Amino acid sequence: MDIRKKPIRVGMIGYKFMGKAHSHALRDLPFFFEPAGVPVLQAIAGRDEAALKQSAEKMGWSSYETDWRRLIERDDIDLIDIVTPNHTHAEMAIAAAQAGKHVLCEKPLARSVAEARQMRDAVNKAGVIHMICHNYRFAPAVQFAKKLIEQGRLGKIYHIRATFLQDWLMDPEFPLTWRLRKEVSGSGSLGDLGAHIIDLARFLVGEINEVVAMLETFVKERPLGEMDQHLRGRPGNGQRAPVEVDDAAVFLARFDNGALGVFEATRFSKGNRAGNRFEINGERGSLRWDMENMNNLQVYLDGDEAGLQGFRTINCTEVEHPYAAAYWPAGHIIGYEHTFINLMLELCNGIANGCNPAPNFEDGLRNQLVLAAVERSDQTGRWVKVMEMLDN
Amino acid sequence: MDIRKKPIRVGMIGYKFMGKAHSHALRDLPFFFEPAGVPVLQAIAGRDEAALKQSAEKMGWSSYETDWRRLIERDDIDLIDIVTPNHTHAEMAIAAAQAGKHVLCEKPLARSVAEARQMRDAVNKAGVIHMICHNYRFAPAVQFAKKLIEQGRLGKIYHIRATFLQDWLMDPEFPLTWRLRKEVSGSGSLGDLGAHIIDLARFLVGEINEVVAMLETFVKERPLGEMDQHLRGRPGNGQRAPVEVDDAAVFLARFDNGALGVFEATRFSKGNRAGNRFEINGERGSLRWDMENMNNLQVYLDGDEAGLQGFRTINCTEVEHPYAAAYWPAGHIIGYEHTFINLMLELCNGIANGCNPAPNFEDGLRNQLVLAAVERSDQTGRWVKVMEMLDN
Amino acid sequence: MDIRKKPIRVGMIGYKFMGKAHSHALRDLPFFFEPAGVPVLQAIAGRDEAALKQSAEKMGWSSYETDWRRLIERDDIDLIDIVTPNHTHAEMAIAAAQAGKHVLCEKPLARSVAEARQMRDAVNKAGVIHMICHNYRFAPAVQFAKKLIEQGRLGKIYHIRATFLQDWLMDPEFPLTWRLRKEVSGSGSLGDLGAHIIDLARFLVGEINEVVAMLETFVKERPLGEMDQHLRGRPGNGQRAPVEVDDAAVFLARFDNGALGVFEATRFSKGNRAGNRFEINGERGSLRWDMENMNNLQVYLDGDEAGLQGFRTINCTEVEHPYAAAYWPAGHIIGYEHTFINLMLELCNGIANGCNPAPNFEDGLRNQLVLAAVERSDQTGRWVKVMEMLDN
Amino acid sequence: MDIRKKPIRVGMIGYKFMGKAHSHALRDLPFFFEPAGVPVLQAIAGRDEAALKQSAEKMGWSSYETDWRRLIERDDIDLIDIVTPNHTHAEMAIAAAQAGKHVLCEKPLARSVAEARQMRDAVNKAGVIHMICHNYRFAPAVQFAKKLIEQGRLGKIYHIRATFLQDWLMDPEFPLTWRLRKEVSGSGSLGDLGAHIIDLARFLVGEINEVVAMLETFVKERPLGEMDQHLRGRPGNGQRAPVEVDDAAVFLARFDNGALGVFEATRFSKGNRAGNRFEINGERGSLRWDMENMNNLQVYLDGDEAGLQGFRTINCTEVEHPYAAAYWPAGHIIGYEHTFINLMLELCNGIANGCNPAPNFEDGLRNQLVLAAVERSDQTGRWVKVMEMLDN
Repeated sequence: MDIRKKPIRVGMIGYKFMGKAHSHALRDLPFFFEPAGVPVLQAIAGRDEAALKQSAEKMGWSSYETDWRRLIERDDIDLIDIVTPNHTHAEMAIAAAQAGKHVLCEKPLARSVAEARQMRDAVNKAGVIHMICHNYRFAPAVQFAKKLIEQGRLGKIYHIRATFLQDWLMDPEFPLTWRLRKEVSGSGSLGDLGAHIIDLARFLVGEINEVVAMLETFVKERPLGEMDQHLRGRPGNGQRAPVEVDDAAVFLARFDNGALGVFEATRFSKGNRAGNRFEINGERGSLRWDMENMNNLQVYLDGDEAGLQGFRTINCTEVEHPYAAAYWPAGHIIGYEHTFINLMLELCNGIANGCNPAPNFEDGLRNQLVLAAVERSDQTGRWVKVMEMLDN
Repeated sequence: MDIRKKPIRVGMIGYKFMGKAHSHALRDLPFFFEPAGVPVLQAIAGRDEAALKQSAEKMGWSSYETDWRRLIERDDIDLIDIVTPNHTHAEMAIAAAQAGKHVLCEKPLARSVAEARQMRDAVNKAGVIHMICHNYRFAPAVQFAKKLIEQGRLGKIYHIRATFLQDWLMDPEFPLTWRLRKEVSGSGSLGDLGAHIIDLARFLVGEINEVVAMLETFVKERPLGEMDQHLRGRPGNGQRAPVEVDDAAVFLARFDNGALGVFEATRFSKGNRAGNRFEINGERGSLRWDMENMNNLQVYLDGDEAGLQGFRTINCTEVEHPYAAAYWPAGHIIGYEHTFINLMLELCNGIANGCNPAPNFEDGLRNQLVLAAVERSDQTGRWVKVMEMLDN
Repeated sequence: MDIRKKPIRVGMIGYKFMGKAHSHALRDLPFFFEPAGVPVLQAIAGRDEAALKQSAEKMGWSSYETDWRRLIERDDIDLIDIVTPNHTHAEMAIAAAQAGKHVLCEKPLARSVAEARQMRDAVNKAGVIHMICHNYRFAPAVQFAKKLIEQGRLGKIYHIRATFLQDWLMDPEFPLTWRLRKEVSGSGSLGDLGAHIIDLARFLVGEINEVVAMLETFVKERPLGEMDQHLRGRPGNGQRAPVEVDDAAVFLARFDNGALGVFEATRFSKGNRAGNRFEINGERGSLRWDMENMNNLQVYLDGDEAGLQGFRTINCTEVEHPYAAAYWPAGHIIGYEHTFINLMLELCNGIANGCNPAPNFEDGLRNQLVLAAVERSDQTGRWVKVMEMLDN
Repeated sequence: MDIRKKPIRVGMIGYKFMGKAHSHALRDLPFFFEPAGVPVLQAIAGRDEAALKQSAEKMGWSSYETDWRRLIERDDIDLIDIVTPNHTHAEMAIAAAQAGKHVLCEKPLARSVAEARQMRDAVNKAGVIHMICHNYRFAPAVQFAKKLIEQGRLGKIYHIRATFLQDWLMDPEFPLTWRLRKEVSGSGSLGDLGAHIIDLARFLVGEINEVVAMLETFVKERPLGEMDQHLRGRPGNGQRAPVEVDDAAVFLARFDNGALGVFEATRFSKGNRAGNRFEINGERGSLRWDMENMNNLQVYLDGDEAGLQGFRTINCTEVEHPYAAAYWPAGHIIGYEHTFINLMLELCNGIANGCNPAPNFEDGLRNQLVLAAVERSDQTGRWVKVMEMLDN
């Protein structure tokens, strides 16, 4: 490693799906980029020692801890990376901040606005660098979209319509995972998928002023699975329990800048595996993006000669596109995992340079306010101002 | 003409854009199909005799009347086809029905629920055949979508998301046409574009129970154009007047059968010329359609073998697809105008056989109730039951 | 009809698939356009009086003749439109020209270069207007492609790759239609499909200098069908006969201007109903077109700003696009049949104005030379100069 | 590392673009998979020590050698990975084999059939494991295509059309890189791009029997660049030299099994950055693939119900798709680099298990025979049997 570069010793809590994505990104970051700070995969924490040991070896971590508090106490750790279920985020992030560690936390930041505020306050008080893992911002096509909007290519924004459509939960016999239990996840598709498209909308269009929403749980109860039995202390012999969170969340939004938003997050849209898509319409142009073809950005520019107007399919793998030059030649696409590598670049540069990247816990809190407003609107049947949720 | 077939003598009121589409469809119908009743282009009505004469000749009408009431009085007319601006629909349709004429009326049926009810009651009382011109139902791909849903291929429907996106009105210097004046049009993009996607949703998914909505007028005032000066009796020298209707209408809906709907109609989505699109997700499959590629239906079927699951792009030009066999060989596409020909087939068969086709004035009224509920919701900021609007 | 306009009295020989497309186009032409000469559907000719009578009535022709020679003799006919199988083209076209009639002939012009030359010479000698029905040139997107190329937007052309892919003949039990018998059709997919893409290439890129080719007949013999039994005078009880023409024709070409061409015409490409597609690459841009989405032209322009380069999907329904203004508003697509209407406009204007439109019999002959060169190359296994075939 | 697993100590010669792709794949392999042999990035070789040192550090190699022969002599190296220009492949691969090292070699295998034969013979004689780096075979969608064909889902294959279209060389001022000099590269787009699509065709359809071809060099001479001046020992002050290789190579092919092939490799197709695409048509189905959307496979199956037939867009990220389960959940796409990871898995498993993977040097030789036949055909203007080139 370049000795002029600061090592950033990482401790990661959790090691499942997101742990894999984060570990891979930390490993690949210095291969593709020249980050100001270079991540060192120091240790992971979890409860199941056998699984933990195997994961550490597989993913390239030097050590492990069976108690996450031990990880935070270690003085050879600079950054705590939290990839555990939502109900643990607040306690872990606050403890990490209090221990003077920088913090990266998976989304949604918390289960509630109250938790999210405490987390934001804790990192601010501790003066540590913090980030929330809204990785989709870091697709080159999305960053390029941002650049076009900032350059005024679209003019005033009138509309955004965004979806995150999945279908993995449609089988009524699929068990009640932690993602379906309110005390663990906070909400269902809303916090899991909706949080991502809210982040994209905030990033690209601006702050949301008010929302009106409907949530729906199509399958009202599900079989208890193994994990649930463990957590609840009862056998899983065919027992069922109520699903406590939404299967689908749809809402309308008014942005501070007058744009109108239409959002839809659902796990019940057959055939859509990862339908994270948006279209933005402005005064002078429009953009379309689809995560399943994430290298492409569709761009319509009003200034194009009459007769030659149409959406351009731009494969964002050119040197002009953010992050793209670090990878492969034009036309040689990248994938899902690269959004994490790009995010880690911003985080490690932020830590090395002492300046906070975005999206951070402030963004996480803002996002949480929207989630809360959506839930409140569903309960009350009326429009809810996002900032009103701050005091809830 | 086949002497066994009943001639249906048509009188059309209006002769502009929609008049062209209707005239063409009436002419082409017997070329492609064998309707039980064969339309005869008897007469058109309008106010400008020179333009009327020229249009009659161009479009193949045998005669014309400068007073629409005269047309209705003529006893050589069986069917009155109304293609004039919205504020005239009620008076004309009611007069036609009272004169014992069958009636085809452009959409939206009326400016208000009250007008729509009177129209529906009038045709019912008169016992005439009536239809509303929601032509998009009659794209072969949409009819095929209907067939798949009716066969249960999608199972229970969970979601529909539908848009009708246009961009022709974005220039703030575009004049205040009749479509932008409330007393003429009733509403803006809502009644013009929203009515179409509401009709598609009602056709494919079922009745809408309640809605929550927001309307927006992005450009608040516009120059008076020539027509407007005429109507308002004042010169158009740079004068501007307020836009009285919505530029965009977005709303959420709950259907009687539990499905969730997301709707967006706007004239401010740059780059979308005729973005009439929907996606429907059911328990066992999904459908996608886009008017700009209207021959194609995207179909996802859950029953496909694992690994071979994906949306199929079906070019609905095969003999198995509704109406398609009457046109050209597979792969040889049809266009916008054919939706009108197909609709005219149903209308002429209905008249000849004495049974009312769909969509008819009952559908028009139902549609109007949704439009009214959307407007009410925008005013009140709350969810509105569609059937509550019946008494307004 | 506008009395200032010249009526063009049409006599059509044949009345099946192509007869339907031509009849429709002749009927619709004055509805959409203002042709200098207005077609009058005077008479059709065929052998089966019952079918002929029914078709005349259905398609709107005023009279019929059971002998095509009678049709040509009639002095109330200005234009003979030939839509019969290929082996009849030469005799009919020459007789029509000799009788002083203008001639429209379906493609391919003839079965051989010799026939095509005689036809070309006959119309030239008679001084009549003549045209060959390569309708795909007249898709607005293709005409717009031509315009872009002529304006030099693509610069020097390097490549064209063109296919016409079908799959209707893949079932080995499909009978031996006239299209599969050499004495009737001249060739198989080569003359039927290949002729169309050769015409598009000649129109857009220029003259072909030499070719190298391979032809293949995948299904070597087929059952005799009803029509075949009639023609051959033997019963069809399970008898089979050899297929005498190609199922697939693929060839490379060098153009006079140095461009390279790759062509593929086949009836054995499963899933492709009408895969008439091309891509053209030039020094400064590229174009892509697909008949199954015929309203769209994909355009890449080198001059686009770096980072914003990509193929634009242009829906050629804007007023700037050739022929488009006559139809419907932007985004409201047209279909296969409109290519014939547009062609008929050029023909009728040509007749009225006394100037020969393209593509005409000269183009038909040029096309025939390429077909002949392809066949020669297949037989000899070497490159064949197109102009060498002129003396064969 | 799992001690039960065999380490495979890799020495890589070269370290530029392909060196990056290979290094990354070797690093990522054990993260995603459980290869039977685990690669160890032991050493890289090159001539420029400063650049070499920097690359070794950046890409994670433990050491370096400034003489590739030293690398081959080292007894702590098991596998030699050759990523240098084509003219060096033969000497290096033969030396490596003679030293008892396993060999992975970039494509095309060599500059000539003679070189390729020597290489094939050398690895066979030495009994080492060998592989050629045709990475595109290892896209999950391509492997899935192979599986479908092997299962007989397409039936007998009739057609393949394949292109590899690029545009990076179109500027006539782009200097004469090594890829444009015959003694270094052997051929131009033919060996660079054509070799890839030949490999895909051999993999999916079978052996090519004969070809007919045309090669073209559109830009006949180019400025000498820095590297060229170095190699040629003369200053680069505006001097130009002839381009010795093809800019474009197009050819027709007959396969042993009767299928027809159409191939096009070019660096002059504006707007196509990496247009590596194929379509295969069989008796019962068809497949389409495009590297720029490499996760998708388009599949048409004849057995689909009438009316529901169409190309399915299959996102090959499901557990049923080859290699996909090792990466991310369905719909979360992978990219170009993963084709190398998958290839390295086969190589490392092959080395650990002592069995030779495909594509190997035998495949490389077969491919070289086709390249040679294409060149011969271009020179002779006739069809050339591929196997005839074996004795050249």
